Amino acid sequence: MSLITHGNIVIGQSGGATAVINASLVGAVEAALTSERVEGIFGMRYGIEGFLREDLIDLRRQPAHIWPQLLHTPSAALGSCRYKLKEGDLERAVEILRRYNIRYMAYIGGNDSADTAHRLLEAARQANYEINIISVPKTIDNDLPYTDHCPGYGSAARFIAWATVDSTMNTISIPSHYPVKVIETMGRDAGWLAASSALGKYTEADPPHIILLPEQPFNVERFLTRVEEVYRQLGYVVVVAAEAIRDEQGQALGAAGQAGLDAFHHPLLSGAAQYLVELVKTQLGIRARFDKPGDLQRMASNSISPVDRDEAYLVGEMAVQALLNGESDKMVTLIRHSDPVYHSTTGLVELAKVANVQRFLPDEYLDESKTMVTQAFKDYAQPLIGGPVPQYTMLEHIKVRKMR
Amino acid sequence: MSLITHGNIVIGQSGGATAVINASLVGAVEAALTSERVEGIFGMRYGIEGFLREDLIDLRRQPAHIWPQLLHTPSAALGSCRYKLKEGDLERAVEILRRYNIRYMAYIGGNDSADTAHRLLEAARQANYEINIISVPKTIDNDLPYTDHCPGYGSAARFIAWATVDSTMNTISIPSHYPVKVIETMGRDAGWLAASSALGKYTEADPPHIILLPEQPFNVERFLTRVEEVYRQLGYVVVVAAEAIRDEQGQALGAAGQAGLDAFHHPLLSGAAQYLVELVKTQLGIRARFDKPGDLQRMASNSISPVDRDEAYLVGEMAVQALLNGESDKMVTLIRHSDPVYHSTTGLVELAKVANVQRFLPDEYLDESKTMVTQAFKDYAQPLIGGPVPQYTMLEHIKVRKMR
Repeated sequence: MSLITHGNIVIGQSGGATAVINASLVGAVEAALTSERVEGIFGMRYGIEGFLREDLIDLRRQPAHIWPQLLHTPSAALGSCRYKLKEGDLERAVEILRRYNIRYMAYIGGNDSADTAHRLLEAARQANYEINIISVPKTIDNDLPYTDHCPGYGSAARFIAWATVDSTMNTISIPSHYPVKVIETMGRDAGWLAASSALGKYTEADPPHIILLPEQPFNVERFLTRVEEVYRQLGYVVVVAAEAIRDEQGQALGAAGQAGLDAFHHPLLSGAAQYLVELVKTQLGIRARFDKPGDLQRMASNSISPVDRDEAYLVGEMAVQALLNGESDKMVTLIRHSDPVYHSTTGLVELAKVANVQRFLPDEYLDESKTMVTQAFKDYAQPLIGGPVPQYTMLEHIKVRKMR
Repeated sequence: MSLITHGNIVIGQSGGATAVINASLVGAVEAALTSERVEGIFGMRYGIEGFLREDLIDLRRQPAHIWPQLLHTPSAALGSCRYKLKEGDLERAVEILRRYNIRYMAYIGGNDSADTAHRLLEAARQANYEINIISVPKTIDNDLPYTDHCPGYGSAARFIAWATVDSTMNTISIPSHYPVKVIETMGRDAGWLAASSALGKYTEADPPHIILLPEQPFNVERFLTRVEEVYRQLGYVVVVAAEAIRDEQGQALGAAGQAGLDAFHHPLLSGAAQYLVELVKTQLGIRARFDKPGDLQRMASNSISPVDRDEAYLVGEMAVQALLNGESDKMVTLIRHSDPVYHSTTGLVELAKVANVQRFLPDEYLDESKTMVTQAFKDYAQPLIGGPVPQYTMLEHIKVRKMR
């Protein structure tokens, strides 16, 4: 704890964008605007990468209407980066911080960004430059430790949960056409996002029927057996596959070699979903196809969870509060409360504990098959997506009396 | 015109489902329910294919709450089919119609379904069985002739228009990460759906930058030149590609041979988007990736256009009105009015004119590049999607004064 009485603040966004990462920016800016101790409010363009080029914009001089509008704008309005620090970068960054008299920094990002923030602070200490830095959690992967969940996850999970139910409506309208549907999700090495596909599964027959998680080694035989089983039972099968699933040798599905060569005789990385579709077609002789929502799952503005957006705002706001309270070298965390209904408050955790640590989907959230989640997972994730997944109406099968 | 005073009605859904095809069903059922001349109201399960198995359900005995709920339920609630009529099917279908005293039939579908309806009527005439049949237009491909547009298209176009803008928000947040984004759309051999991706393009820099339409033969050189051009200008490129685009020899992009062999040494059909991504990576050395929303574009319940849903209801309702008025062998059409604001009324066209005819995106909707639409197309499609595509807020580039 070292209270810094006044100075300029810089806010940055880093890593893959989310549908609500701008809410964290707005939360941080609005908290900074209300403090008399904050002088300049600077925005880092393209995270630390832009900062090293002194690409800074003035957030105090933005038109006022921008902030409420940014609450509804997906993606990183400041621009983001995926930048690996190089030799000399940290020293240069500290020199820029000093030149611009930046005494507070809020860095919105995931594990890598927490690491960057932590290392920047160490460099500042060594250079005897006084600054407080707080990380603001952000990732659709939900893989940051010490926080109940991560802003960005709720909206992406909402997208995937709805997509699974909606896309299946097509499959069941003509089950014979493409009986097997694969939906490919993001989520890096953690299964949180793929698991969220089950939030609209109210009955055994509801989709998805198989979830392939990155934490669970993929086994061809087990997979095909399960597909056949469900197919015999229902006449169709909906599989959700995380894009980072790996086989028992640790090789990504659809990686080079497995998918053959492309038109230019380069190894083709076909992706998990396409690999699975080919597998089902060739090994079981069942027609299959895939949906790969890609960046839509992180960006779809009409899938933003209001709970997620509010929490993204909150962590941004609380980061600036913490900075002004003299906190540093920490990440804001979300703490879950369920009494009387779901709500969250914030805490802080040391960056050293967070940096480069991934939190995986725990085993207790999986049933024995390891390809389906438990009710405990649903109870965990449901409040975050901001409302129930639609349970669509079906016509009742009241047969017309046979006429002869 | 032959007025049939009373009898049973059967309603069926056919072809690929849409997000609003159930609104047409509800429109038809509610019109039938209010007529004293309609006796039984039967639903064909799985279109003509189920009808041939006498798979009929009683729509009169459904609980009343089902109809308003189905207005918000994507996909074909009756089940659908893609069935090619076989020898003897038509005679058998007429025999079933006779046995169930079915005197009216509303068949909701696309070109193929119109053909089925037309042929069924001919078979009935030959068998001296009196029945009126009206087709109800439905297709996300928007490729039916003689109607201004097709129910189902507005919602799918809304999805694609938003997806293009939303997904691009991710690209521009880190343009250096994957500078080229390809979004693959459906639409069969017609470019209407791919073209709708431009409905959020308010400026030259807005996405998409290149639209690849099935009507325009794909040329590798022209494509790569244009990608490089936009890349040099903006630092990123958003390409929308219809899944059915073909090269100048008429071969589908990413078809067998072009994409190499898969893990099982079968020719790999990689799909247009994946082919383009490989092309850009290997020929231009620029990182690229793709989104393939797949069935989501036809099913996403949170992308339903209210205009589209209302019109889907209307064509269903008017089909039953036409049947009761003695019309037969026709398809309901939508007629556009723009004064004082956009609205539509319905007409009728002979099935013989519609069956198996595809309406392609006309040349006047394309600019000289043939990879971008004109304002005339936007004026055509904009009212159908039920609201403007978001124009997202950007921070103003007010640079912080350089400090030394």
